[in-house]
Amino acid sequence: MIRAAIVGGSGYTGGELARIVCRHPKVTLEAMTSRQHPGVKISKVHPFLQGFVDLRFDEKIGGAADCDLVFVATPYGASMDIIPDLLERGIRVIDLSGDYRLGDAGVYRKWYGIEHKDLGNLATAVYGIPELFRSEISKAPLVANPGCYPTCAVLSLAPLFAEGLAEGKVIVDAKSGTSGAGMEPTKSTHHPNCGANVIPYKVGSHRHTPEIEMALGKLSGGQTEVVFTPHIVPIVRGIFCTSYATLSRELEHDDLYSIYQKFYAGSRFVRVNSIPSIPSVVGSNFCEIGYEFAGNGNVVVMGAVDNLVKGGAGQAVQNANVMFGIDEATGLDFPGLGV
Amino acid sequence: MIRAAIVGGSGYTGGELARIVCRHPKVTLEAMTSRQHPGVKISKVHPFLQGFVDLRFDEKIGGAADCDLVFVATPYGASMDIIPDLLERGIRVIDLSGDYRLGDAGVYRKWYGIEHKDLGNLATAVYGIPELFRSEISKAPLVANPGCYPTCAVLSLAPLFAEGLAEGKVIVDAKSGTSGAGMEPTKSTHHPNCGANVIPYKVGSHRHTPEIEMALGKLSGGQTEVVFTPHIVPIVRGIFCTSYATLSRELEHDDLYSIYQKFYAGSRFVRVNSIPSIPSVVGSNFCEIGYEFAGNGNVVVMGAVDNLVKGGAGQAVQNANVMFGIDEATGLDFPGLGV
Amino acid sequence: MIRAAIVGGSGYTGGELARIVCRHPKVTLEAMTSRQHPGVKISKVHPFLQGFVDLRFDEKIGGAADCDLVFVATPYGASMDIIPDLLERGIRVIDLSGDYRLGDAGVYRKWYGIEHKDLGNLATAVYGIPELFRSEISKAPLVANPGCYPTCAVLSLAPLFAEGLAEGKVIVDAKSGTSGAGMEPTKSTHHPNCGANVIPYKVGSHRHTPEIEMALGKLSGGQTEVVFTPHIVPIVRGIFCTSYATLSRELEHDDLYSIYQKFYAGSRFVRVNSIPSIPSVVGSNFCEIGYEFAGNGNVVVMGAVDNLVKGGAGQAVQNANVMFGIDEATGLDFPGLGV
Amino acid sequence: MIRAAIVGGSGYTGGELARIVCRHPKVTLEAMTSRQHPGVKISKVHPFLQGFVDLRFDEKIGGAADCDLVFVATPYGASMDIIPDLLERGIRVIDLSGDYRLGDAGVYRKWYGIEHKDLGNLATAVYGIPELFRSEISKAPLVANPGCYPTCAVLSLAPLFAEGLAEGKVIVDAKSGTSGAGMEPTKSTHHPNCGANVIPYKVGSHRHTPEIEMALGKLSGGQTEVVFTPHIVPIVRGIFCTSYATLSRELEHDDLYSIYQKFYAGSRFVRVNSIPSIPSVVGSNFCEIGYEFAGNGNVVVMGAVDNLVKGGAGQAVQNANVMFGIDEATGLDFPGLGV
Repeated sequence: MIRAAIVGGSGYTGGELARIVCRHPKVTLEAMTSRQHPGVKISKVHPFLQGFVDLRFDEKIGGAADCDLVFVATPYGASMDIIPDLLERGIRVIDLSGDYRLGDAGVYRKWYGIEHKDLGNLATAVYGIPELFRSEISKAPLVANPGCYPTCAVLSLAPLFAEGLAEGKVIVDAKSGTSGAGMEPTKSTHHPNCGANVIPYKVGSHRHTPEIEMALGKLSGGQTEVVFTPHIVPIVRGIFCTSYATLSRELEHDDLYSIYQKFYAGSRFVRVNSIPSIPSVVGSNFCEIGYEFAGNGNVVVMGAVDNLVKGGAGQAVQNANVMFGIDEATGLDFPGLGV
Repeated sequence: MIRAAIVGGSGYTGGELARIVCRHPKVTLEAMTSRQHPGVKISKVHPFLQGFVDLRFDEKIGGAADCDLVFVATPYGASMDIIPDLLERGIRVIDLSGDYRLGDAGVYRKWYGIEHKDLGNLATAVYGIPELFRSEISKAPLVANPGCYPTCAVLSLAPLFAEGLAEGKVIVDAKSGTSGAGMEPTKSTHHPNCGANVIPYKVGSHRHTPEIEMALGKLSGGQTEVVFTPHIVPIVRGIFCTSYATLSRELEHDDLYSIYQKFYAGSRFVRVNSIPSIPSVVGSNFCEIGYEFAGNGNVVVMGAVDNLVKGGAGQAVQNANVMFGIDEATGLDFPGLGV
Repeated sequence: MIRAAIVGGSGYTGGELARIVCRHPKVTLEAMTSRQHPGVKISKVHPFLQGFVDLRFDEKIGGAADCDLVFVATPYGASMDIIPDLLERGIRVIDLSGDYRLGDAGVYRKWYGIEHKDLGNLATAVYGIPELFRSEISKAPLVANPGCYPTCAVLSLAPLFAEGLAEGKVIVDAKSGTSGAGMEPTKSTHHPNCGANVIPYKVGSHRHTPEIEMALGKLSGGQTEVVFTPHIVPIVRGIFCTSYATLSRELEHDDLYSIYQKFYAGSRFVRVNSIPSIPSVVGSNFCEIGYEFAGNGNVVVMGAVDNLVKGGAGQAVQNANVMFGIDEATGLDFPGLGV
Repeated sequence: MIRAAIVGGSGYTGGELARIVCRHPKVTLEAMTSRQHPGVKISKVHPFLQGFVDLRFDEKIGGAADCDLVFVATPYGASMDIIPDLLERGIRVIDLSGDYRLGDAGVYRKWYGIEHKDLGNLATAVYGIPELFRSEISKAPLVANPGCYPTCAVLSLAPLFAEGLAEGKVIVDAKSGTSGAGMEPTKSTHHPNCGANVIPYKVGSHRHTPEIEMALGKLSGGQTEVVFTPHIVPIVRGIFCTSYATLSRELEHDDLYSIYQKFYAGSRFVRVNSIPSIPSVVGSNFCEIGYEFAGNGNVVVMGAVDNLVKGGAGQAVQNANVMFGIDEATGLDFPGLGV
């Protein structure tokens, strides 16, 4: 059994990690920390875990000391204080914050507004989308789990970029459920404001922009310009990304379908359909992808994921499976709710 | 023209009052106060009022000094500090807090947890549901504007109690939109919590319970026991009350319909239908009422109002119209959105 | 392995049954029928089952011939045409329609408007709430799976009635997600009508009324009068029942808590909390229950279930587990989504 | 008084027209037709109009015979059968279908799939966005009221195109409330499908694409390529358009603000804010517009309207006001609900 701990477990991502890990046949949840709720029963903060997780929150990660694997679900800036020590002790780490995603200290400073303190691990951390970077993940001591939006956008655009089929900039227009905003009540998630509304935010300045650019760049081998706009829509779980790319050569609709199918052959959690559906993926680790042509080489690519599962905790567990050499679907092989 | 001011205008009720008053043909909005936003343009806090209200918030009610009418939309406890002085200056007052609704200092203490400081006005304030107490309102210097839930519950049950047709206790099961919770983000109105949920609150202990009992008692001339449970449902505007009463004598469905129709004849804002509809009343001052028999003398009475209009600001303006002797529908005579 | 088939599998209940059964470690899904979609891939009608269920719909239940267990998810009226033959062949049957719930042909005729054709099995069918009737279910060839509303209402009221603590009538005010209305678009589930609305329906005349009365009567040994009002609220999954009962003797809040805890000791899927939460149970087979006192012996009992799981397919699988003598949580032991 | 009729009044647009016209101080509603509900009281089909509209639906437009103005709210294809005769009789017509918007019979055939039968009027009909084409509308016997999406997209992009500030193609990613889908229940508007979902439709092939291209072309004097994707989001009223354009020259954020302000100076119903808000415009004829820069000359322009008011009936009334030479805000000068 793989002995795992979750650091920073009181938020939605922490709860979701526990929800998945507690049923995982090859992972045991040994400890979970929360600076906000030390000593409190985890199932008090996450009541849906009553009967599944019987631990209390630790204040510090001491409890994680003899684990094989630590999921770090603290906010960005805090992760890089915790992770070097864990790695030194030989523990495999999956970081769910943004601290290790961008690979470059300058880009990190520009978008996160602070200095990176762990340049060595920043340089070697592996970006964790298993469908795209499975082999590197399998050998990595530290995996940077992607953001929810980049997971959805990059998976839906990957075949175009990996096969050199896209040219020029890409527009990513994303619609997210409110759980992506976290557990703390805010003006944007106040129901009278968002319950019958569509709320864009950080337009032209969201941190997931360079992350999408970096990931697509890894695939294409070049630079990609991304214009990214996230919106909050009145659903709780789910992200839908509508992306606009330009084909670099003429293609039939079916040809592209074959390219997508081939690209994702063997990837349990990616489904290429005509139109992706959020309810089909909610509660699951699946990503649905579809596309339509819009004349003149314009292609509209669509993707849907559950932001807390494939866009967060589920992908983290999938990465863990790959890192420990077990079937990547272990503990994740259940369908979405459908309705 | 009636010169009006709004004290405590930065919340949803204040914004709604301004939205209605700014179009009222016989009332002018002279001033609006906010301790939170003194000096700020009102249309900055309530952006939908751009082009309609060009004032700035005053800090104090000095600006209300030479008004004919003041709407007090401060929280309970604060209203009774402000109102005595206004009344002494001969200004008519409509209080939208709970301070003057219950009529009795002991009941107030029990349910609001504080001592009442203005016993004289508490005793003489008139409870402001115009359809039921029009004549007293027309002579009152101070009207206590009802709570949103009591407006809906009492209007839908009134004919039964006024005509002596109900016996025993009444159950009021209410479902409210989230705007009733006010402008401040809270755990209950955080979209991930409430967006796909039904959240009961203050079960068995909500302050509107004695208010409903009092109002029904005024109509029946006796005492009424009310069990009241409010729930938040994921809509923004609107209240739906399902009330359960027992008939004191046998009645045909049509007989009761006639009784309701006759009771509300001449009441512009009450519609007796089979099943009330929130969209039919949203944005308007209408209350829709319906009922069904459930065997053994059980009658299920239903009502729907827009909590911010008939359940708040609209009814306040209707009360003002009655107090100043003008048609009670003035400035309020528009239909709901319907969809 | 238990070989199972689903008859009438193209609706939401059928899809949910397949979603659960396909992961059940001791049940295999052998066949699924649909008169609407014979020959069509099941995962075409239920796209979230892609990769999990690779069968096609059969037109007739021939495929179910050599099964050990059949879930019948056809509409009421159709089930009683199918079930006698299955039982004669020695197959265990769980009927998810209303055909076998009420036990009495006269009551059935009154509420369903048609004559019952299978009086023998109607008389012996066992009502399938395992927490209440586990022992009878374990021996039954035919289990009548309860309605979604009765499951929620009866579980939350059961300790009061089984222990003789309630007197007089009970009011059940239920709020349901729209998936309870089924897959066919209707006026009530048209989003512009229901998306910002609370819609009561069949007030005083819903078929689940006698079902709740019957189940509570089984527990109390007497007759119970139930007034039941279902409402559609704008959520997809989940039922919340607020029930109003009168205590037959004085009780402290904690005493009743002990009674509830004791009553449900050993029942994996019932949680007694202060306030039940729909998100805590969505996607799971759990029922959450809570209550508050409202003075004068009034008690407000609340319950929450996922209407498609504990209120439908999940409970059916739980019944199957009990019928086949395996742990009742097998294949169902996962937590709700929580958010 | 202007005597008006509505042809095809049983849908949402018809109801909304009646809702606005019934309060218009200079227009009287003389007749309303419906082939579906001839002889039925209008307030039976549109219950929110009880007390405001006391007419019954006519089957045919005979009743419109002696009107000054007819709003035609029939489906496309039907309008062009009705309108020539009305125009011949000297009646001013506002067509809310798509029949007269595109100006060109070939483009019409391509996108609507049928032959146009009224080429003369097609050529002379004026496209009715008053803020952009006020002068032509004032002289027009026939105005083609724009689609809901084009109203929102074109108003938000107009200053860029009229001032020659945009180059290359434009992406319009639109999110619409479900009322835009009309009164008939469909799979897409079935709440279990759309209530927690984002549903794109007619990707790359929606009829409003050429309409947006045509309108932007009128402003720029050239050709514009538009990629347009509409999505249904789970709100009832409101459209939010996020559009992606490329600036043809460098501009400061404030410069563009001045350009927008100047362009819409004197336009009562357009507000240039930072981020548009659907609740601010719901129930009103306002359009809110905002924009942000996204680096490299990319500009993200956002717009919000109530699809049934500024995106439909409200704009039709505004057009009528311009056609009859009265203040364009007459009967429309009320704020949005705000919350």
